[in-house]
Amino acid sequence: MAETAARDPLPRHHLLGIEGMTQAEIEPYLDLAASYALLSRSRTAPRDALRGRTLINLFFEDSTRTRTSFELAGKRLGADVINMTVATSSVNKGETLLDTAATLNAMRCDLLVVRHAASGAPALLARKVEASVVNAGDGMHEHPTQALLDALTLRRHLGTLTGLTVAICGDVGHSRVARSNIHLLTAMGSHVRVVGPPTLVPEAIARLGAVEVFHTMEEGLRDVDAVMALRLQRERMGAGLVPSAREFFRFYGLDGRRLALAKPGALVLHPGPMNRGVEIASDVADSVQSVIQEQVEMGVAVRMAVLDRLSRMRVPA
Amino acid sequence: MAETAARDPLPRHHLLGIEGMTQAEIEPYLDLAASYALLSRSRTAPRDALRGRTLINLFFEDSTRTRTSFELAGKRLGADVINMTVATSSVNKGETLLDTAATLNAMRCDLLVVRHAASGAPALLARKVEASVVNAGDGMHEHPTQALLDALTLRRHLGTLTGLTVAICGDVGHSRVARSNIHLLTAMGSHVRVVGPPTLVPEAIARLGAVEVFHTMEEGLRDVDAVMALRLQRERMGAGLVPSAREFFRFYGLDGRRLALAKPGALVLHPGPMNRGVEIASDVADSVQSVIQEQVEMGVAVRMAVLDRLSRMRVPA
Amino acid sequence: MAETAARDPLPRHHLLGIEGMTQAEIEPYLDLAASYALLSRSRTAPRDALRGRTLINLFFEDSTRTRTSFELAGKRLGADVINMTVATSSVNKGETLLDTAATLNAMRCDLLVVRHAASGAPALLARKVEASVVNAGDGMHEHPTQALLDALTLRRHLGTLTGLTVAICGDVGHSRVARSNIHLLTAMGSHVRVVGPPTLVPEAIARLGAVEVFHTMEEGLRDVDAVMALRLQRERMGAGLVPSAREFFRFYGLDGRRLALAKPGALVLHPGPMNRGVEIASDVADSVQSVIQEQVEMGVAVRMAVLDRLSRMRVPA
Repeated sequence: MAETAARDPLPRHHLLGIEGMTQAEIEPYLDLAASYALLSRSRTAPRDALRGRTLINLFFEDSTRTRTSFELAGKRLGADVINMTVATSSVNKGETLLDTAATLNAMRCDLLVVRHAASGAPALLARKVEASVVNAGDGMHEHPTQALLDALTLRRHLGTLTGLTVAICGDVGHSRVARSNIHLLTAMGSHVRVVGPPTLVPEAIARLGAVEVFHTMEEGLRDVDAVMALRLQRERMGAGLVPSAREFFRFYGLDGRRLALAKPGALVLHPGPMNRGVEIASDVADSVQSVIQEQVEMGVAVRMAVLDRLSRMRVPA
Repeated sequence: MAETAARDPLPRHHLLGIEGMTQAEIEPYLDLAASYALLSRSRTAPRDALRGRTLINLFFEDSTRTRTSFELAGKRLGADVINMTVATSSVNKGETLLDTAATLNAMRCDLLVVRHAASGAPALLARKVEASVVNAGDGMHEHPTQALLDALTLRRHLGTLTGLTVAICGDVGHSRVARSNIHLLTAMGSHVRVVGPPTLVPEAIARLGAVEVFHTMEEGLRDVDAVMALRLQRERMGAGLVPSAREFFRFYGLDGRRLALAKPGALVLHPGPMNRGVEIASDVADSVQSVIQEQVEMGVAVRMAVLDRLSRMRVPA
Repeated sequence: MAETAARDPLPRHHLLGIEGMTQAEIEPYLDLAASYALLSRSRTAPRDALRGRTLINLFFEDSTRTRTSFELAGKRLGADVINMTVATSSVNKGETLLDTAATLNAMRCDLLVVRHAASGAPALLARKVEASVVNAGDGMHEHPTQALLDALTLRRHLGTLTGLTVAICGDVGHSRVARSNIHLLTAMGSHVRVVGPPTLVPEAIARLGAVEVFHTMEEGLRDVDAVMALRLQRERMGAGLVPSAREFFRFYGLDGRRLALAKPGALVLHPGPMNRGVEIASDVADSVQSVIQEQVEMGVAVRMAVLDRLSRMRVPA
């Protein structure tokens, strides 16, 4: 501890983001998640990997889906799971984030899953808590378990994550999902295209890894292996900049005509919850090319793998 | 599955309503619940009937009592219980009910307990999810576990559910509890009277099974075996139609003078939570004839029985 | 039961307050908690002391920290833990507190943890429920587990609770924490000083046990063994009586200069969550004399001890 500098590397027993992770660091998560997915289907998941461990879901932003996915993952591994949903307003009134960290240490929290509106909040907590920290989404920064579950879903269908071309479409600028996916897919040797209007695809995105930027779906989707439609996050946009749903769908909605430009059988992904008729057409979401439901299933498996691995990295067996 | 028509019968591994159930289908629930009630008193409930199973309480309307009852039932049988309370507003913003169903399937939910403001929402989910669905109250339609727990309470005291006369009083029109009880009691061979002002007892009620309608408590309660007072649900009434509490109690409150018209020792039931001094007098609620507290106890036992049986119907042993 | 009078003593299987408890009644809680604290550090807590028991957290006021501490304590002992957070407004609409008690009995609740804005609400429930009741804070009355965890923290560092001098500072009048601590420390043979402005230190406080009142920090802190800073509870103060944070800190904030008046190495406590820069200076909160984080850790251990002991007092082995 003493020799760590201000810019010390993130400890291995946290998962704060995909940026900086190598293929060799990413693959063990996918491999373990794949085995959990199989066990889950055969209903033989081991129930004691986290027996006696305390998992706290600390959500400063509400998210029923993500919180439920982590809660299920923890309970299926036998952990004691505690939900702490904290309105940011009461945080302001009361404790600082660092006081919260001290409280969690004192309660002997082993695994801390954090969602926060501020980029970097999980990393700040990770420097102060003894628990393994999993970033469950921080501001517009990262959402690493989402990228892992997307990758696992792609790998199950396409056999590899190397040499693929994946188009990420729509509200890229506000999307931590897009950022984590760009880091992961480029680290694994795939090509990422981002597709969206200039207002929603900031310049900085183009500088993340080897990303190609397109401003029309017709160009961006041509010959890709998979298309990921992002949720249009109007709540993050300034007034006057919010596109109408109808107009957005007309220019950037993922419909059958545009999907036909991709490779035959190209996969369709969406991190959910979907705005049908806004960023994705209903028939595309429900088509045989869609793996959206499987993403949710892989989500639980990935979170089991992450909780299990981080727990073992922290306490040597 | 292949031969089912648009009007196919509800699959047996759901409990969506009492309507259409026969005596032979109802009694196994009551018998198993009776045995759970005994085990619960002796504190020897088996803890592994649902070990490894995932129970999700999906409540689109908040209800602390009913949610707690199902949560207790699930935990006492060893299930992993997850509460998902969803404000309807955010449902509108986000996912459709069918997307929620797909998400639950992907999460490998085994038992889904649903409360929703819209009649038919649990049945809609049941057609799309792999889980067994239990209707925990949908709009003004049904609340089947409430009817089962009322029936079990009656049977424990009166020895039978055949040939009884039961008066259901007050705000019948808005009551899913009344509807489920009418179906269950008439299926078991008992007589049901509904008692209330014409504004709260719609014509359609009289056509549900063999129901007699009364507009005064003095006539309706004469010689009955049991009286069920319903909660006055002002939140469901249109403006201008809400009776005052004082006026309602004067004409339709269950007080000692009116209860004396029933058979000696007639039972008093109420689904809770009570508005004392509105639909029921405090001394009647607390009298020796009241079985209101026992209804709550039977509620947990009935929900254990329902979860246990549905789980076994779904997965052949 | 039959011979109990209106003023019967509180049954031993509840923990409603510290007032009236003797040293011989207090110490077993501290001793058991001390052993749980050790087991917790070595991660060998027994997981089945409360196996099959139902613990309900009934919170009429929201408190993430205290609720989480009890939830952790219950789960680490293997109990089924149910959270019931009840907005007081809906209580008014619906059930009386006594109907809630009847419901909890019917659900076979074994351990009931209650927080309520009204002083005496837990005691009222304790007379009606079969569960063991733990007061988790009632109005401005008591918060007994907080006093026990403060005492355990003091005892671990100072070796004894006899003959100490402890200063409780700030918003004493609104503080149930102060009241429980005054009862406990005086029962154990320590001296308590309360320090605050006349508006926040009511006359009645001075009559609780052998308490000395001071109106300046400079006098009150002189030569004490420990200083407890209280949270300034502006939400409980009438309009016009709320001191500004800056002014309060200037006169009653616990800063390094004032702490230096206490004994060398005097301990610093705070029940949390802290308002840094209001009742306590940040550098004091984070100093080596601060045991604030340890208080949280002892909180879980004390609650394990309380739940365990009360459960055994209720059901003879």
